[in-house]
Amino acid sequence: MRKSQEVKKSLTKNRKYVYFFGGGKADGNEKMKELLGGKGANLAEMAGHPKLRLPVPPGFTITTEVCTYYYQNKKKYPKELEEQVNTALRKIELLMNKKFGDPENPLLVSVRSGARKSMPGMMETVLNIGLTSKTIPGMIKQTGGNTRFVYDAYRRLIMMYSDVVMEKAAGIEPEDEMGIRRQLERLMDEMKERKGVKNDTDLDADDLKVLCEEFKSKIKEVLKKEFPDDHMEQLWGGIGAVFASWNGKRAVAYRKIEGIPDDWGTAVNVQTMVFGNMGNDSATGVAFTRNPGNGDNNFYGEYLVNAQGEDVVAGIRTPAPINDYSASEHNKNLVTLEKSMPEIYKQLFIIQKKLEKHYRDMQDIEFTIEKGKLYMLQCRVGKRNGPAAVKMAVDMVKEKLITKEEAIMRVTPSQLDELLHPIVDPKAEKENKPITKGLPAGPGGAAGMIVFSANDAVEWSKQGKKVILVREETNPEDVEGMRVAQAILTARGGMTSHAALVARGWGKCCIVGCDELEIDYSNKKLVVGEKVLKEGDWITLNGTKGLVYEGQLPMFDATEESTLLNEFLSLCDKIRKLKIRTNADTPKDAKKARFFGAEGIGLFRIEHMFYGEGSDEPLFKLRKMIMSKTEQERRSALNELFPYMKKDIKATLEAMDGYPVTIRLIDPPLHEFVPHEESKLLELAKSLNIDISNLEKRANSLRESNPMMGHRGVRLGVTYPEITETQAKAIYEATAELLKNGKKVFPEIMIPVVCKETEIFDQIKIIKKVYEETLKKYAMKKIPHLVGTMIEIPRAALVANKIAEVAEFFSFGTNDLTQMSFGFSRDDIGGFLADYLDKKILKEDPFQSIDQEGVGELIKIAIDRGRKIRKDLKVGICGEHGGDPASIIFCHKVGMNYVSCSPFRVPIARLSAARAVLELKK
Amino acid sequence: MRKSQEVKKSLTKNRKYVYFFGGGKADGNEKMKELLGGKGANLAEMAGHPKLRLPVPPGFTITTEVCTYYYQNKKKYPKELEEQVNTALRKIELLMNKKFGDPENPLLVSVRSGARKSMPGMMETVLNIGLTSKTIPGMIKQTGGNTRFVYDAYRRLIMMYSDVVMEKAAGIEPEDEMGIRRQLERLMDEMKERKGVKNDTDLDADDLKVLCEEFKSKIKEVLKKEFPDDHMEQLWGGIGAVFASWNGKRAVAYRKIEGIPDDWGTAVNVQTMVFGNMGNDSATGVAFTRNPGNGDNNFYGEYLVNAQGEDVVAGIRTPAPINDYSASEHNKNLVTLEKSMPEIYKQLFIIQKKLEKHYRDMQDIEFTIEKGKLYMLQCRVGKRNGPAAVKMAVDMVKEKLITKEEAIMRVTPSQLDELLHPIVDPKAEKENKPITKGLPAGPGGAAGMIVFSANDAVEWSKQGKKVILVREETNPEDVEGMRVAQAILTARGGMTSHAALVARGWGKCCIVGCDELEIDYSNKKLVVGEKVLKEGDWITLNGTKGLVYEGQLPMFDATEESTLLNEFLSLCDKIRKLKIRTNADTPKDAKKARFFGAEGIGLFRIEHMFYGEGSDEPLFKLRKMIMSKTEQERRSALNELFPYMKKDIKATLEAMDGYPVTIRLIDPPLHEFVPHEESKLLELAKSLNIDISNLEKRANSLRESNPMMGHRGVRLGVTYPEITETQAKAIYEATAELLKNGKKVFPEIMIPVVCKETEIFDQIKIIKKVYEETLKKYAMKKIPHLVGTMIEIPRAALVANKIAEVAEFFSFGTNDLTQMSFGFSRDDIGGFLADYLDKKILKEDPFQSIDQEGVGELIKIAIDRGRKIRKDLKVGICGEHGGDPASIIFCHKVGMNYVSCSPFRVPIARLSAARAVLELKK
Repeated sequence: MRKSQEVKKSLTKNRKYVYFFGGGKADGNEKMKELLGGKGANLAEMAGHPKLRLPVPPGFTITTEVCTYYYQNKKKYPKELEEQVNTALRKIELLMNKKFGDPENPLLVSVRSGARKSMPGMMETVLNIGLTSKTIPGMIKQTGGNTRFVYDAYRRLIMMYSDVVMEKAAGIEPEDEMGIRRQLERLMDEMKERKGVKNDTDLDADDLKVLCEEFKSKIKEVLKKEFPDDHMEQLWGGIGAVFASWNGKRAVAYRKIEGIPDDWGTAVNVQTMVFGNMGNDSATGVAFTRNPGNGDNNFYGEYLVNAQGEDVVAGIRTPAPINDYSASEHNKNLVTLEKSMPEIYKQLFIIQKKLEKHYRDMQDIEFTIEKGKLYMLQCRVGKRNGPAAVKMAVDMVKEKLITKEEAIMRVTPSQLDELLHPIVDPKAEKENKPITKGLPAGPGGAAGMIVFSANDAVEWSKQGKKVILVREETNPEDVEGMRVAQAILTARGGMTSHAALVARGWGKCCIVGCDELEIDYSNKKLVVGEKVLKEGDWITLNGTKGLVYEGQLPMFDATEESTLLNEFLSLCDKIRKLKIRTNADTPKDAKKARFFGAEGIGLFRIEHMFYGEGSDEPLFKLRKMIMSKTEQERRSALNELFPYMKKDIKATLEAMDGYPVTIRLIDPPLHEFVPHEESKLLELAKSLNIDISNLEKRANSLRESNPMMGHRGVRLGVTYPEITETQAKAIYEATAELLKNGKKVFPEIMIPVVCKETEIFDQIKIIKKVYEETLKKYAMKKIPHLVGTMIEIPRAALVANKIAEVAEFFSFGTNDLTQMSFGFSRDDIGGFLADYLDKKILKEDPFQSIDQEGVGELIKIAIDRGRKIRKDLKVGICGEHGGDPASIIFCHKVGMNYVSCSPFRVPIARLSAARAVLELKK
Repeated sequence: MRKSQEVKKSLTKNRKYVYFFGGGKADGNEKMKELLGGKGANLAEMAGHPKLRLPVPPGFTITTEVCTYYYQNKKKYPKELEEQVNTALRKIELLMNKKFGDPENPLLVSVRSGARKSMPGMMETVLNIGLTSKTIPGMIKQTGGNTRFVYDAYRRLIMMYSDVVMEKAAGIEPEDEMGIRRQLERLMDEMKERKGVKNDTDLDADDLKVLCEEFKSKIKEVLKKEFPDDHMEQLWGGIGAVFASWNGKRAVAYRKIEGIPDDWGTAVNVQTMVFGNMGNDSATGVAFTRNPGNGDNNFYGEYLVNAQGEDVVAGIRTPAPINDYSASEHNKNLVTLEKSMPEIYKQLFIIQKKLEKHYRDMQDIEFTIEKGKLYMLQCRVGKRNGPAAVKMAVDMVKEKLITKEEAIMRVTPSQLDELLHPIVDPKAEKENKPITKGLPAGPGGAAGMIVFSANDAVEWSKQGKKVILVREETNPEDVEGMRVAQAILTARGGMTSHAALVARGWGKCCIVGCDELEIDYSNKKLVVGEKVLKEGDWITLNGTKGLVYEGQLPMFDATEESTLLNEFLSLCDKIRKLKIRTNADTPKDAKKARFFGAEGIGLFRIEHMFYGEGSDEPLFKLRKMIMSKTEQERRSALNELFPYMKKDIKATLEAMDGYPVTIRLIDPPLHEFVPHEESKLLELAKSLNIDISNLEKRANSLRESNPMMGHRGVRLGVTYPEITETQAKAIYEATAELLKNGKKVFPEIMIPVVCKETEIFDQIKIIKKVYEETLKKYAMKKIPHLVGTMIEIPRAALVANKIAEVAEFFSFGTNDLTQMSFGFSRDDIGGFLADYLDKKILKEDPFQSIDQEGVGELIKIAIDRGRKIRKDLKVGICGEHGGDPASIIFCHKVGMNYVSCSPFRVPIARLSAARAVLELKK
């Protein structure tokens, strides 16, 4: 609010609202994106920078400040604007030797939006402005009598203008079917039917002329207004439409998703029209300075002869490759630009080299060739997929184009993530058209056979079939089917729907809200457009982009390209300060994480080892321990459990030889471990030598109303000291034996769910005693280790100074800390999270990314107070946030020593930790 | 630690360790309690203060510093001590004209403990020190040949000394049955048997002489040591025993319960022996300057002719009243001191008047008359029960003896509490001897018939019988029976046992850990000592003191003495700054609380009104609302609910006419309201027009893993705005109608479970809309009210500044705030709380008294940040801590505006709030 008031004040007289570019000069430059928008700033740079001075059609940019002014002043413009626009028009006229509205030699212009950040397709464009009954004859003359071309341009203008300016900008938003554009298209279809032709291009000049008149009558009939026949009215109408489109439904929705502030506003670019459809010496195309699909350092693009930009988009004609490198299966027989217009290609090649060198990044460029003359219409940093981003970053460092710091900032964690999941082979995706599109809810690619129920998913996968579960939407009952499916596809639901949340949690490929799907459960089929797919049919999903393909497309496992990945990650390792550990509960996980670069284990949960593969003997004994009622029973169960515990701890410590391993003492609510099956209960009762009803009574007494805040963590250790004792014994003995074998192992004993220093006092007494006993047993002087605590209870954070007096390290358990700071049970958040995100009450799920304001403050308080008492306090995080890039940056900022995350997030964490260092430098 | 080191350092040479008193002079005075202990300081004051100079037997006090030194220096004394003791002894000898250890005219002394705070019966005393084979003949001569008296004194010395000094102080702690004292007693019993007599007093001088020799042989046999025959050895042995007793088992346990620091140490008082058993001109007695049982301003006490203090305690002879006022049923026929020794009585009467005026408080005094001479042995502030404390406080203000501030500090909240429960008539208690004693777990008194099971309790009370539930211990299954019982009595369990926790929660009379009870469930009887009580027998409990009486004692309802109570509480009202509100969910509760002095309602929980008496129609409709699936269903249920809501809110607002009423929007987990009975479910299904399986499905979908952190509070209002809407409508319309009727009502709408300001934004939009509609409907310009929030989620406290931007008041929901700050589910804390208290991990149950360190910091942060944004932010507390004295003091300190508590705690809160002001002044 305050900011816009400042803007308002500064909008004083003689303020510059219009920035001209063209003829080797420009008022603006690439750095002025906030004012000129991305497109305007890049046009100015290309046109005016001394090292570039590229052939850009002259034009001007109306600044984003005007947009702000427009919305703050009841959709009026600043007074000075008109004069500044007129002056800029004069400059264009001079350069182009044409005149806007001139009957003899008319100048035509385009009006395009251009926000600070690209919002593709979200805002409006009007082309061919300046064509009126007065200028049409002159235009025909100028094109050497190409009447058809001119009327074709005119009917495009009318269609766009009536839709964008007269209808949308006026705030009329009928259903698409009822919109003016659709009505005009129907007139055109009727005309083609009358003439018995199929394509627009088959209509001749006269047809188009008649059509234009029909269009104008229809417009008057429907919109009760004349299509303007004045060039200036057209221009201002276009400008107004662009500003109005900033607050159009689609744009607002897009900004909401992308997190673009509403008050940024858009700029408007008015630029001389150039035509790629003026004959066979004309063309239009798009290209990338490197291959955005794999990162190869090769000029890569496509073009269409005698066509306008929108024809390329429309997809009626297949574009040709610009050079042999760019050829694909579909277009390898078409003539390349390099062959058809070698001179132009050479110019373009030099320009793209210049641009990449100038911008020091891969560029996405648009060009038009009008009657043998090359024009550059746009250049911007090119989008790329994950593998390409990594390759370009590594290559450009080698080429000395960029520094390693820049390379790191060029790869986003989500791009790196693409390398860590199998993806649909980019080549195959290029050659196949998606049958529909939805929201990208879970990353990576997957192919499988369609099943329509969770039960079927389970059944089919038992038979070894790969399935994709397709549902209207999912609910908790589907979870088992979701787990076994290769991927999940839903017709309804948004990015926070059940399916999306679950899939993201698992890192599973998932597309939601694919609303073109019509699912017919009873007949086990789905309809999309005209396609009908049945149960068992193969489909392939690209969950990163939300694309659905028919059939089984080949997959591509980017993790296999480990050389490149390793090269990139070692750049990160040189920069980052945070150590990266992993959460691993088995020796197997530990080894996997080590392969990904983990430098220790930040969370080894003793109780999880019992869920391992193989024998369920240890789990049985754990249950027996839990169901014990007397200390004697419990001790006897613990004694049976001890060898398993020691063995697993030993193997994990050994797998992490040379690195520390944080071992968390038993934590979760005990009743979670109570078996549900009758047979298991019977067995347990027998083993405990009590009857089943007695056992059930014991099990019931373990149930809690709110187990998350119940008898768990250190509370167990306090009430049953023998549990702590046994664990400490397993840890120390395993360590002692490995040390004797020359291993470099370093256990860190972590006490969970602490809320007060006295709990640690109590436990340390027990642990210390076991330590002394172990030293004696192994005749050792010392077993290096630490004893510390999890900070996962809000109170613990507040009294961290007291806790640091006894705890040698802190590890933030941000899952629980978030639960208790918000009072959100993670298991129950489903009841309201979607509404909270939808109503913007929460910006994001606090279990995905640390809530820096609230939970973050507790973390800061804890570190601050803890280090006041113990300067060298080792601090890390072992909640699931440890693998979230934004959270990792936060962890770095607050001075943690390490983050710990699941094994497959370790590379993401290495990158994020490096980016954290660089972001903090900025 | 640091403190004791300082003490150590300061123990330099020539330090004064011994403080003399006697002969109208004293080295110390009443203010030196820390150094001299309570007893020593008061002896010095009585002996030496110019306005008192009372006849105190001369003596000296060895300071508490010596005790500290003793424990820090391997039980050795400072070098200077011996000399200072000797010097003090010389002074006594001079004054008494006797000599310690002198064969002709020996001085005898007593050695007594005296800690800073009274620890009755916990530490040791040795009397008659100085009797040896050398001094006995002289002593006999001095007593005019009273050989029997001297040998009786000697055998008392031997018994005490061997027990206290030779056995206990040596660290030998045999079972009582095996102890030396018991063995000597057995010898004495044998002697009585031999002589065919019954009482100790029937043994003659020769018997006693023989007995003393037998004693000494036995001691040598058992303890392998001679009983010392040297007066100095006896003295130092006694001194050492007192210091040693500071760390005796009983004393340590007592300090643990009473919260007395271990490092305070005790002083030792060495004082000339005077004897009340030197004939009929001798006597001993205890008295109070006012009646400690009811507060009457009358001298009150009892005495025994020819007796020693221990005889009074032993209870063999019935003491006589000192005056007619003190006479009771038991002793009204005995001669009063006033009659038997009128001169002495007059002296004593003047002394007690002096003492009360000097100390400005009721005094508890001990005196001895030795051969017609009065000696004052002790004076201290007298203990009193609740009614007496209040009466004395009010009276002394009227007498201008104390200020109203002092009066307030004289009554503890727990004393006031006695006035708020029926108690056993103090007179009746006096006249009945308890049959056993346990831990006082729930206050007040109760009489009822014994039942031995919760089921019987329920059955019998259905028949209109008053019952007391007697159990070994209780568990959650007994709760129903506990609820209907008048009181609960258990044989096992401590102050945090299940029975104790539950009873305290209800304010119900309860005694636990009454370990003399032998309960025989199968025969439905209990045995205590030699008594056998059966089911149906009446017993009476004093839960405040833990006393159990046989039969039905009369009760006394102190609340009926409302004049006195009101007088006292209006003193409090003049001092306190905090407003006192109440938590009331019905108009009936509101009226009750108003009677107790509530100045508004701090918590009116909308959903609780549905559990009222009478029709269960509203509850049914609430359930219907909860089980609705669509907005339409929900709206229709809400519409049916609306009239009930409005009616109850209106009646409550009206009951609080003139005061604010904080109305909390619906909060608890919805599934709590799902009915369990099949019939109710069916009815509900019918009303919702769905089948029962569908309804069960809906009910199941409402169940949560951790409902305390689930879909509740404001989260409901966000997901179902119509719920908020209906509530706001009920509140505003009720208010509008009352305002139109000239009532002064002021609702405060409270949004619960808020964690982020955006939740309030969201709800305020809805509430505001309803507000505008209501204004229109009632053609009003304004309906005065506030909209605020509960602060009960840790995160909310941290972002209180943001929340204060929209919330007009804060009310701390300390129940939930404690749950989430500690991660303690209140419903599940039973699993570990007892261990936590026992191991001193927690000092007290944080749900009873605010955890000032952790939860308190969050409260302070919230108030601080909230008031930074909104200076006049109204802040209160509505958790159950609002009725806890220590918590109320905290609330005052942190600057809250009010506390809110259950109606019957309002008087306690009024007192505590006043005490808070005074404590803060100190």
